[in-house]
Amino acid sequence: MRETLPLRPPPRPNDATMVWNGWGDPARRPGLDGRDERVLAELLGGPLPHTPSVRLEDVTLPEVTLPGPVLRRLAGIVGDGHVRTGRLARVAHATGRGYADLVRLRRGDATSAPDAVVLPADHREVQRVLEACAAHDVAVVPFGGGTSVVGGVNPQTRARPVISLDLARLEGLHHRDATSGTATFGAGTRGGDAELALAAQGLTLGHLPQSVEHATLGGFVASRSVGQASTGYGRIDDLVVAVRAATPQGTLEAGHVPSSAAGPDLLRALLGSEGTLGVITEVTVQVRPAPRTRAFAAWWVPDFASGQQALRTLAQQGLAPDVARLSDEPETRLALAQQSATARAYVRARSRRITGCLLIAGWDGQGWQVRGRRRAARQALGAVGARSLGAAPGRAWASHRFDTPYLRDDLLDRGVLVETLETAASWRELPDLYRAVREALTAALAERGTPPQVLTHVSHVYPTGASLYLTFLALAQRGAELAQWAHAKQAASQAILAAGGTITHHHGVGADHRPWYGHELGAVGALALRGLKDALDPTGICNPGILLPDP
Amino acid sequence: MRETLPLRPPPRPNDATMVWNGWGDPARRPGLDGRDERVLAELLGGPLPHTPSVRLEDVTLPEVTLPGPVLRRLAGIVGDGHVRTGRLARVAHATGRGYADLVRLRRGDATSAPDAVVLPADHREVQRVLEACAAHDVAVVPFGGGTSVVGGVNPQTRARPVISLDLARLEGLHHRDATSGTATFGAGTRGGDAELALAAQGLTLGHLPQSVEHATLGGFVASRSVGQASTGYGRIDDLVVAVRAATPQGTLEAGHVPSSAAGPDLLRALLGSEGTLGVITEVTVQVRPAPRTRAFAAWWVPDFASGQQALRTLAQQGLAPDVARLSDEPETRLALAQQSATARAYVRARSRRITGCLLIAGWDGQGWQVRGRRRAARQALGAVGARSLGAAPGRAWASHRFDTPYLRDDLLDRGVLVETLETAASWRELPDLYRAVREALTAALAERGTPPQVLTHVSHVYPTGASLYLTFLALAQRGAELAQWAHAKQAASQAILAAGGTITHHHGVGADHRPWYGHELGAVGALALRGLKDALDPTGICNPGILLPDP
Repeated sequence: MRETLPLRPPPRPNDATMVWNGWGDPARRPGLDGRDERVLAELLGGPLPHTPSVRLEDVTLPEVTLPGPVLRRLAGIVGDGHVRTGRLARVAHATGRGYADLVRLRRGDATSAPDAVVLPADHREVQRVLEACAAHDVAVVPFGGGTSVVGGVNPQTRARPVISLDLARLEGLHHRDATSGTATFGAGTRGGDAELALAAQGLTLGHLPQSVEHATLGGFVASRSVGQASTGYGRIDDLVVAVRAATPQGTLEAGHVPSSAAGPDLLRALLGSEGTLGVITEVTVQVRPAPRTRAFAAWWVPDFASGQQALRTLAQQGLAPDVARLSDEPETRLALAQQSATARAYVRARSRRITGCLLIAGWDGQGWQVRGRRRAARQALGAVGARSLGAAPGRAWASHRFDTPYLRDDLLDRGVLVETLETAASWRELPDLYRAVREALTAALAERGTPPQVLTHVSHVYPTGASLYLTFLALAQRGAELAQWAHAKQAASQAILAAGGTITHHHGVGADHRPWYGHELGAVGALALRGLKDALDPTGICNPGILLPDP
Repeated sequence: MRETLPLRPPPRPNDATMVWNGWGDPARRPGLDGRDERVLAELLGGPLPHTPSVRLEDVTLPEVTLPGPVLRRLAGIVGDGHVRTGRLARVAHATGRGYADLVRLRRGDATSAPDAVVLPADHREVQRVLEACAAHDVAVVPFGGGTSVVGGVNPQTRARPVISLDLARLEGLHHRDATSGTATFGAGTRGGDAELALAAQGLTLGHLPQSVEHATLGGFVASRSVGQASTGYGRIDDLVVAVRAATPQGTLEAGHVPSSAAGPDLLRALLGSEGTLGVITEVTVQVRPAPRTRAFAAWWVPDFASGQQALRTLAQQGLAPDVARLSDEPETRLALAQQSATARAYVRARSRRITGCLLIAGWDGQGWQVRGRRRAARQALGAVGARSLGAAPGRAWASHRFDTPYLRDDLLDRGVLVETLETAASWRELPDLYRAVREALTAALAERGTPPQVLTHVSHVYPTGASLYLTFLALAQRGAELAQWAHAKQAASQAILAAGGTITHHHGVGADHRPWYGHELGAVGALALRGLKDALDPTGICNPGILLPDP
């Protein structure tokens, strides 16, 4: 049984057809219906206003400061058609797709737009573009799928000219080593396209973040991405075998052997470097035969703590499911409210109670492996009093699992603040972290008169701990959306650090987490990172203002 | 069924009881008997001479250049009894335990000895020692178990005074987080002691390098160690959760959460840093319940290639055994020659042929997991024509698996050059790598009139490739042992790089692999590593001459 990914070629942000205020193809977008609106209005305590966005032609763009001769030198490297300075290209590369990005764009604010968008064809051209930019002191912001939700692709400063380096043309399967079980892709290859190319050969990478239709393999590596099945397949850190990168100092190749003790692993320096050390141009990943068996199951667990206990037991036995998603009570209630009456009745009948938490699990593998791990899951969950809900809720989740980001346009149209954040901690610290972040978000938004709904799930489990993924919704404060968002973000971030969590489990640092990253890194860690940066990018042209804490 | 590690408290190299020309307690050493000598003499083509080593009091030590006031400042930090300048302490810290080290020591050459051995009690003292050494321009060589076989603990230069920083007092289990499944040890804790402390609580780390009785957790991390079951448990990179290190710039703590996207993972910068960035003082590792089932099995495979094919199939299915050790034909023949007549008859009877290769596999886990993976192994091995030899050869290997290093003293006593080296490559490149290294070693030693026996096994398998572990034996060239060794080492290293292998899979770079490491790292990689080094150790006092390639 193989699941088919619901993928089709999405529009590129630099296509004229793009929907610039959200992700992807409008025809593909699941919308909010009347019932959804009523549920939301009730939860958030007020009617939902209509808040339209401006038209593309009314968006404000900054002056172009890139000198003509430099533009011509860049065109000389990549070809005339591959340097774009038009309105659509600049707006499309002004931001990623975080809530604050969308708010700004909908208001018509694209002041973070680059001077130009440059689309090199291959590693050599990327290397030459970097050299030209270093020579002329032009900042370079690498752009893959443009799905950063932490400001990672937004040019941060206009202190010097800046280009967005779009890697769309570095796409495709370059090489497949069937013996070693690896595949080498251009860094601009989208995750979904990579999966389709592999599926045609009976293979899978198994890396399925919610952004998989748009985000690129280079972006996965640069931001240390996780996918929905990363509990089983491992995060991209575990899947990437080798990387080629262009840096202002020349080409860096890391990771040619499966395992080595030859000094610190420089592949790990590129993982999470977010374009600040150079531009990843080629990524080699470990691929696997597509699983023979894929199964989903759902359980109703008595509470969030007991669900965590069961997942912890499984992870520490080495028997965690590949997908492990445990919703807390508020997220479970909302998920239930969104279901049809029939589905709700089904859940109620199977669970015989209506408080509790929903756990969705998924397994890939050979039959006996899936059976063995399902048996272990039944034991661990039975021990905490969970009840099986069968396969249907898991399958329903799987069939809609890439949809949620598409709802954001509709939510913003209706004046709803919707944002997500994610963290991780050891199992011991996880309960306190959960309470602290929920309370901080709730208090911060209540202070502003917009009490939120905070929905949380455990999204990835490890032997030593787990991640928390939080979604919060509130009525947006019209005209003060960004201040409202920043207030909530600040409260949550401080709470995370105080409770021993990481400032980001998989969204990356970008610009949004940078104020707190220095604290997590520590003073000596920051020195180390700065040493690495200065060695590879001595003039600081690579994604300035991203990642690295202020000295 | 739990295996008991054959561990007992071994003498420390700085104990007065130490056997300074080899490892450990003479009573514990398995010796060579008359039959072994006859087999060796026949294989190496000549009688084995007796080549005794000098006495401790005849060893040459360098002048002490550390000024008295600095020595007193160091004693002020660690206490008078913990700064040692006596002959035994200096000789014991002059080298690790590579072949070249032993040859030099046996000749009475301890010119690499430090001026003093300093034994701090805790992280704070290590930090203060580093600050004092930075202030007085004294080099610091961290010393854990002293088991480096690549010169990693040998002071490399006498351009400035140098101390050996022995971490013996930073030992013991500091903290155990039962909920998160982690344990925090002082970096000077020996691997065997850590296993014993964990076993008392029904736990295991599962990291069993051949040096486990002596080597320390800090040393494992500093040199990116692997253990004999690392195919299943993962190399130390996969087991370490957090590290505390003292650097000349202050304390660096890395890895407080199970998983993060907050920038490049600095824990990975310390892994493999070999004391060049600072001194690891505390290590937190993931621990597991001791396995309920442990099983070993052996097979007779038709040849080295078909054994690799079976292991590759298993690794790519995610079903590799935890221990996977496939000997090539020469190693198999020697292993067989060393067995008793009964064992040989048994193997012959079970295999019904006498050419082929021995494969030993081991599994840990719950019953159904071990059964499932054994079934997969039987299938993959059956498909290449392997025959089962039952559990006995695997158990025999397991019961003697920490003994081999102890044979080296006896071999050196008999004038035998014995050295090991290890590399790894992708499955595609592995066969050529194997041929190239074997041929290079054979040719290089034949050129010198001492044709070797080269014995190889695949020691660790990964989905994308595997490691090769080579042992070579030849008659030593009396008086020219080091030139003979260097000639072989150079030939092997050049062959490894040319064939796409890594210069080291688990021994580390140290001094011995440094001439080739720069080639593997590349010019830009070397810049990155140097940037990191300069940021944390700006005056270059941390293990100078180790790891970092010349600019």
